[in-house]
Amino acid sequence: MSEVLFRDRVRDQDRLSVREIVTSTGFFSAAEVDVAEELVVERLAKGDESGYFFVFAETPHGRSLGYACYGPTPCTVCTFDLYWVAVHESMRGRGLGKSLLAQVENRLKVLGGGKLIAETSSRAQYAPTHRFYLSCGFALEARIGEYYAPGEDILYFTKSIGRDQATD
Amino acid sequence: MSEVLFRDRVRDQDRLSVREIVTSTGFFSAAEVDVAEELVVERLAKGDESGYFFVFAETPHGRSLGYACYGPTPCTVCTFDLYWVAVHESMRGRGLGKSLLAQVENRLKVLGGGKLIAETSSRAQYAPTHRFYLSCGFALEARIGEYYAPGEDILYFTKSIGRDQATD
Repeated sequence: MSEVLFRDRVRDQDRLSVREIVTSTGFFSAAEVDVAEELVVERLAKGDESGYFFVFAETPHGRSLGYACYGPTPCTVCTFDLYWVAVHESMRGRGLGKSLLAQVENRLKVLGGGKLIAETSSRAQYAPTHRFYLSCGFALEARIGEYYAPGEDILYFTKSIGRDQATD
Repeated sequence: MSEVLFRDRVRDQDRLSVREIVTSTGFFSAAEVDVAEELVVERLAKGDESGYFFVFAETPHGRSLGYACYGPTPCTVCTFDLYWVAVHESMRGRGLGKSLLAQVENRLKVLGGGKLIAETSSRAQYAPTHRFYLSCGFALEARIGEYYAPGEDILYFTKSIGRDQATD
């Protein structure tokens, strides 16, 4: 993988980048693409108060290659939700998803560590997503049957993130 | 228990009733009492769009004795969250919580049934809450460790509600 830079600050043009990345995967419905953009809009409007934090992966020339979105889980002390990890179709299979997740984990370590939770559907379509989380050290910790729809459970993949020792 | 009436329509004075009921239990923090009232405010402002539905138990003279708050879980087809069930301290131990829950279940049956989920903390303080859900036919279906805080898990009590046969 040629040089990839990571950036936390969200810009107006990320609305389009996010739509392009998420659409390119061929994985999400039009409504889900709208939701992905909406999180960027919320972030731009409210900053940290939005509860949405981003890491973008991009080329040195500023072309967006993928991103992750995460944030503190309301009513918890040190739990975080991983809302999205998406990589542009043209970059698939090069470990960029894993790198983005590692970036998120580094940020949580600096914040004192905690639990990172990725909610996903049990549908067969999401089997690659399940394998991705497991390969990144997540465990399938909980499951509620028939959650999203009849026959479609919710799965909670979780990973405990330690505190950054360097900040002691 | 003398006559108890159940009412779905939410009124302005329910803001105060809810504060009084929730405070009387001695169970909730000031911040939690504020949240309880806030759900009423949301309901009054936005109606069904708020996602919050209520059932109030009251005397024939209109004194509020307890209430339940529930609503459809976003992004699901037929799952519902049970947000609150609270009974005024003066009415405890008379089965009113169970009656309120039965009222909620009846409403879900008419809507076609589905899964009802009550999230709660694993803290010892909530042991009576856990026993209440189990005695009402809920099962402890899922658990995520260290969710709310170190040593404090989230428990998902769930119950499958059938469709109302009478509406076939």
